[in-house]
Amino acid sequence: MKHLNLFEANDFSDKAFKRILVHDSPYFKILNFNFKAGQELPVHSHDIEGEVAIAVIEGNGEFLGKDGATIPARTGDVLVCAIAEPHGIRAATDMRVLVTIAPPI
Amino acid sequence: MKHLNLFEANDFSDKAFKRILVHDSPYFKILNFNFKAGQELPVHSHDIEGEVAIAVIEGNGEFLGKDGATIPARTGDVLVCAIAEPHGIRAATDMRVLVTIAPPI
Repeated sequence: MKHLNLFEANDFSDKAFKRILVHDSPYFKILNFNFKAGQELPVHSHDIEGEVAIAVIEGNGEFLGKDGATIPARTGDVLVCAIAEPHGIRAATDMRVLVTIAPPI
Repeated sequence: MKHLNLFEANDFSDKAFKRILVHDSPYFKILNFNFKAGQELPVHSHDIEGEVAIAVIEGNGEFLGKDGATIPARTGDVLVCAIAEPHGIRAATDMRVLVTIAPPI
């Protein structure tokens, strides 16, 4: 069993969002991103098979999609999309998100 | 893209924990369990390949393991284990958890 607390394991930086690897295995890769208010993970995509799930643990902002699309991202929100589909995040407040990618990349 | 808010999509019941399917695909299965204080998902395991990740979205309690083992489960905690390894949850307060299983079962 692997166990950690996201609030203890990762903090925030004024310079850029902070990312930690929570878990990597043949089954999935789990990452935690912390964003200070105003920081973002720009829209991007990977031309490969698989899906990504993004769960908002704390804070709020927007999920970003193609052509400038935005979806509210609040605590408790879960977004699931193909890794090949453009996706990103912008933080309105300090935000902690959990990202799961399967299969791992 | 699929998008939902766990606080809106699922509620609590005095009778038993409430479970909803968030997502199911060839890559992973994502479920949300809501436990009222005192409710639990008893220790269990599946004799198959794969891993399960459990993220505590709200509340606190304990992760359960084999032979009566317990690990604190607080908001922001993430537990990852083999599906074949005994695991469970007991809620001390009302709890919302997000469970990701890969490959899906």
